[in-house]
Amino acid sequence: MSKFTHMDNKGRPKLMDVSEKDETLREAVAKGSIFMSKDTLLAIVEGNTKKGDVLSVAQTAGIMAVKRTSEIIPMCHNIPILSVSMDLEPDFENLCINITVSASTFGRTGIEMEVLHGVSTAALTIYDMVKSMDKKMIIGDIRVVKKTGGKSGDVYMD
Amino acid sequence: MSKFTHMDNKGRPKLMDVSEKDETLREAVAKGSIFMSKDTLLAIVEGNTKKGDVLSVAQTAGIMAVKRTSEIIPMCHNIPILSVSMDLEPDFENLCINITVSASTFGRTGIEMEVLHGVSTAALTIYDMVKSMDKKMIIGDIRVVKKTGGKSGDVYMD
Amino acid sequence: MSKFTHMDNKGRPKLMDVSEKDETLREAVAKGSIFMSKDTLLAIVEGNTKKGDVLSVAQTAGIMAVKRTSEIIPMCHNIPILSVSMDLEPDFENLCINITVSASTFGRTGIEMEVLHGVSTAALTIYDMVKSMDKKMIIGDIRVVKKTGGKSGDVYMD
Amino acid sequence: MSKFTHMDNKGRPKLMDVSEKDETLREAVAKGSIFMSKDTLLAIVEGNTKKGDVLSVAQTAGIMAVKRTSEIIPMCHNIPILSVSMDLEPDFENLCINITVSASTFGRTGIEMEVLHGVSTAALTIYDMVKSMDKKMIIGDIRVVKKTGGKSGDVYMD
Amino acid sequence: MSKFTHMDNKGRPKLMDVSEKDETLREAVAKGSIFMSKDTLLAIVEGNTKKGDVLSVAQTAGIMAVKRTSEIIPMCHNIPILSVSMDLEPDFENLCINITVSASTFGRTGIEMEVLHGVSTAALTIYDMVKSMDKKMIIGDIRVVKKTGGKSGDVYMD
Amino acid sequence: MSKFTHMDNKGRPKLMDVSEKDETLREAVAKGSIFMSKDTLLAIVEGNTKKGDVLSVAQTAGIMAVKRTSEIIPMCHNIPILSVSMDLEPDFENLCINITVSASTFGRTGIEMEVLHGVSTAALTIYDMVKSMDKKMIIGDIRVVKKTGGKSGDVYMD
Repeated sequence: MSKFTHMDNKGRPKLMDVSEKDETLREAVAKGSIFMSKDTLLAIVEGNTKKGDVLSVAQTAGIMAVKRTSEIIPMCHNIPILSVSMDLEPDFENLCINITVSASTFGRTGIEMEVLHGVSTAALTIYDMVKSMDKKMIIGDIRVVKKTGGKSGDVYMD
Repeated sequence: MSKFTHMDNKGRPKLMDVSEKDETLREAVAKGSIFMSKDTLLAIVEGNTKKGDVLSVAQTAGIMAVKRTSEIIPMCHNIPILSVSMDLEPDFENLCINITVSASTFGRTGIEMEVLHGVSTAALTIYDMVKSMDKKMIIGDIRVVKKTGGKSGDVYMD
Repeated sequence: MSKFTHMDNKGRPKLMDVSEKDETLREAVAKGSIFMSKDTLLAIVEGNTKKGDVLSVAQTAGIMAVKRTSEIIPMCHNIPILSVSMDLEPDFENLCINITVSASTFGRTGIEMEVLHGVSTAALTIYDMVKSMDKKMIIGDIRVVKKTGGKSGDVYMD
Repeated sequence: MSKFTHMDNKGRPKLMDVSEKDETLREAVAKGSIFMSKDTLLAIVEGNTKKGDVLSVAQTAGIMAVKRTSEIIPMCHNIPILSVSMDLEPDFENLCINITVSASTFGRTGIEMEVLHGVSTAALTIYDMVKSMDKKMIIGDIRVVKKTGGKSGDVYMD
Repeated sequence: MSKFTHMDNKGRPKLMDVSEKDETLREAVAKGSIFMSKDTLLAIVEGNTKKGDVLSVAQTAGIMAVKRTSEIIPMCHNIPILSVSMDLEPDFENLCINITVSASTFGRTGIEMEVLHGVSTAALTIYDMVKSMDKKMIIGDIRVVKKTGGKSGDVYMD
Repeated sequence: MSKFTHMDNKGRPKLMDVSEKDETLREAVAKGSIFMSKDTLLAIVEGNTKKGDVLSVAQTAGIMAVKRTSEIIPMCHNIPILSVSMDLEPDFENLCINITVSASTFGRTGIEMEVLHGVSTAALTIYDMVKSMDKKMIIGDIRVVKKTGGKSGDVYMD
């Protein structure tokens, strides 16, 4: 038997059966960062203060991606998304933008993949919009930091 | 005037006009990693050797995501994808799987966002399939390492 | 604090939290029209009577669009669609086709955006199929006319 | 009145109203086959035994398609998919690969279209991956073999 | 023979054959408006000036929709989108927001449907984000105002 | 080395590199059938003659599916679709509806998968719309019958 819940006995993929799981409110929070030069970070922050939008576009893209996670991640269940909030914080000490995505669902399976997908999509969107200025950005530190409502109770990984 | 090519004069987003750019063959390569415990890495590698599939599912998901990048990243052009290849290498020294995605297009705009999207989707797919074993995985080091065919000639960032 | 339920404290978008709302049967009806020349209207109606299909294609497209609303409208929740019906009525007095879409869901949030999306997609589909005959069509009067099942009870806007 | 539940009184399509139906666990199983030359079948099986992947890619594609059925089939409801499993069996007697897809949902409408869509997508994916070797493959025998949880009780068609 | 280019001889839909058409640069511009109360318009404008985002989210959604038009409008060809720009102008005289979308492609068919889809999606997104304040908004006046690069030369409809 | 063009040296999937192939006009034709009871076939044909729509909805769904093939079939390239036509013929001798889909592209890779996807989607749509009348329908005989414009010249498989 496979050790992985998304594998059948032949080692091929399956969509794990969650029909026996309880329907509960489930929440998850993921974080990640996109690292860039000081000039690029300043340009985003200034643009954003005056009139601008890089972070707003990234936030919109991330929220939309949360809802479409099951289309992109093959063994991820399609679930109703009840809330998504996102925080994009410029960080001049570490020269990055820190991304936090929180979301909730009511159902039989968790929402970790959705918040991870939101974080990575927001990071990719920032990358896309400022890549003409900076060819050396790096996206990283993408991880789940909190997960509640599942069988294992509340879990904090941070 | 905005410093960003994806912004109009009001600081709102636009899809950058590429109609004046030359149609050329353009290629890009991106890399990234998903870090995990030694046990998880072993389980993937063993599963994969015997019969298994975590890496094959991730590779399929990553290639599919490359083709759908312009749906997910708001200011990314829709382009014909002429090739995608991917390499997933377990790395026991750094306790991670290293992901490399290469792709090419023939057109007026580059293919960096597509390979980055392929890397992040492959990483998220691995995460999803083994998350029942390991709650502390981290996805990182996602960056473009090579870009050819654009106005600026061949660029190697690694 | 923002006056808008889809905004966070920084004025950036969020998917409004509906987890505290009651699960109820919710219905909505939207209407709209596409205005055109008498010749175009006649061609659609005759084509349709004899054998034809402009309105059937538009109805199919509108129903499919209802189901995909949350993919296209960024802050719209993904919800189960329990029914969609549509009526397309040629109107020779006002030289237009009047479009009505009704739909229902069982859940925590309303279905107004879905019926509006159905109306506008049906109108766009008609436009597409007859635009070779008529370059001056106008789509308009798109609005919600009825909404039931929410906190505010039944609301009729027409 | 139309004999078809997906038709309105004008003979135009509608998404059938299922709001009065009971929410129950519903399962369905579909089968189908892709017929090919012996050489092609051998190449798939050998490739698959040693290292390979045609069947894994097909299985991934089929499971993903199950989740997206309501996007592709116009009058099919969007439903939560609770499980999908698939079996791909090379059959040297009939020179084909036999495909079986099982899936379950909890809701007001059945899951037959989803399993049929999974079967046909897996077959098309196999076709695509080996078509350079074999131009005469045929996909067939796609049908529902089992359906449980609906008003009519358990139905076995095989 | 059908009068409509998207119909076959049986009166059923087809995707019109454009293979004989010339590849040229083609542009189109569409306009439309969303009408609302003065209070709602003020809230959007104030929100937008200070920090805010309704119009930015609408602009992002509209641009994304331009790229996905061929998925939603059944007989619309899939084409490469080379540019999209959008303008959202609050209009206190007519109590509306005026939406203008311009886009270009290089290919064998025009881009009118894409700009119309961009306008209607931006309007729907505004509707969604402020509907808690205003239940009587109306979307209208959606039309093509300019079309260049096709067989019929430049056409101005406004 | 793999015998399959969609496999890399590790036996994992890749999107085959077509950048060296010639850009030509490429066409393909696929056929398939959905077999049903005489009563069901009569109901479709009568409905269709008088007012009806099962075949029109199926035709719309099939054409839309042709355009989205590369989203569903993992190793299929995204290509511009220049034309799609479809024929749905009731066949009382064999008690089925025969489906024929023709399509063309101008590019570096063929369009066989697209026409096969159109056939199977039209068949599934018919199945969905009449399944309340007939639980024993079978979809089959799906194959490519013609392919032109590729390296191997015109090929007729029927």
